[in-house]
Amino acid sequence: MGIVVTEATPARVAGTMPVEGNTQPFGVLHGGASAVLAETLASIGATLHAGPGRAGAGVEINASHHRPGTGATITGVATAVHLGRTLATYDVVLTDDASRRICSARVTCALRDLR
Amino acid sequence: MGIVVTEATPARVAGTMPVEGNTQPFGVLHGGASAVLAETLASIGATLHAGPGRAGAGVEINASHHRPGTGATITGVATAVHLGRTLATYDVVLTDDASRRICSARVTCALRDLR
Amino acid sequence: MGIVVTEATPARVAGTMPVEGNTQPFGVLHGGASAVLAETLASIGATLHAGPGRAGAGVEINASHHRPGTGATITGVATAVHLGRTLATYDVVLTDDASRRICSARVTCALRDLR
Amino acid sequence: MGIVVTEATPARVAGTMPVEGNTQPFGVLHGGASAVLAETLASIGATLHAGPGRAGAGVEINASHHRPGTGATITGVATAVHLGRTLATYDVVLTDDASRRICSARVTCALRDLR
Repeated sequence: MGIVVTEATPARVAGTMPVEGNTQPFGVLHGGASAVLAETLASIGATLHAGPGRAGAGVEINASHHRPGTGATITGVATAVHLGRTLATYDVVLTDDASRRICSARVTCALRDLR
Repeated sequence: MGIVVTEATPARVAGTMPVEGNTQPFGVLHGGASAVLAETLASIGATLHAGPGRAGAGVEINASHHRPGTGATITGVATAVHLGRTLATYDVVLTDDASRRICSARVTCALRDLR
Repeated sequence: MGIVVTEATPARVAGTMPVEGNTQPFGVLHGGASAVLAETLASIGATLHAGPGRAGAGVEINASHHRPGTGATITGVATAVHLGRTLATYDVVLTDDASRRICSARVTCALRDLR
Repeated sequence: MGIVVTEATPARVAGTMPVEGNTQPFGVLHGGASAVLAETLASIGATLHAGPGRAGAGVEINASHHRPGTGATITGVATAVHLGRTLATYDVVLTDDASRRICSARVTCALRDLR
């Protein structure tokens, strides 16, 4: 889907996604694409927080779509709001080229041992 | 993403999505792909409910991931739980080849006039 | 808040709540009261599922309010959609005296050892 | 439930709620009480945004509970993330006496004409 991660720490993960190629029939960004970007960024942060031999897997996501995603590129920033021992939660804000917020999401990941 | 719609009425929309091609780095279905399938099915139902010259656009989605999505095909069924004048809400259940529930989602669409 | 539990197994918990005493300034049921009822029912089911020495505590709740809650009594039914080892998730449906659905919720509880 | 509103503009609403009187059987804040506080603050902001003859009514709420709510007082701050023509969405952060985040919520209100 063309997601590029531009910053990644347990506390904050940022990335971009092109609108083109991720649209629904009306030509604007597919709402599900916003969810993919949000969940990708949060999972990276949670996995960094989880530490060696462990990973964060999304168990819950929610997203409010505020306006159609248009233009060239969507930017997402995931900020940790809780970094626990078994769960990590991120607020994720998606904006368009004009820095307008198109989507607000929250993703909770379970931190689990890798087999 | 290979989504195929197999049934579509305002009250119920069903479809399938292949696991292959929609995976995350660990080889199982990307959680965001579940959100895409859920939002796609609900939007179709809401648009059918909205009637001529109108369409349903997702304004809110949430999804609980219960188990990794594996196997060949994910099946999704969206069932209307509220069909209003300005909002329509669908419960969406995603299952794997063995009919195990991998994800429970709920999607609310705003019903708007097409320009 | 007057919640009465009428049925309780790990798979299904039901209960009622009076509208009177749980209203917001416009005289209809406070949306937060629906969340209280949903979270109460799911937590009971999760605690029953968790077994001796353990309890289920809500970690995530979402609720869609479909219509104002009016009349005398709200009935809630929580149905397990996933009963795992560390997490349990319930769909919760709230209806009014006329069996109209006023709210759809989903609650995920973490299963933890009691200290 | 003892909620006191301490600040109210369309962009930001703050308030407090006592823990005592709003607990579940284990003696900590009931998760549903957090939802009540979040939905109350957001509805006030949305109603202020809606303008004369209109009001904001919660149509969707979600909340992640990060830690048990203990101590004397819970403080909530709702910040508008989208103020539209028909929908308004607020991020709500709840903290305890030690300024620890106990809950992150997001509430979307529909803006409707009062009868």
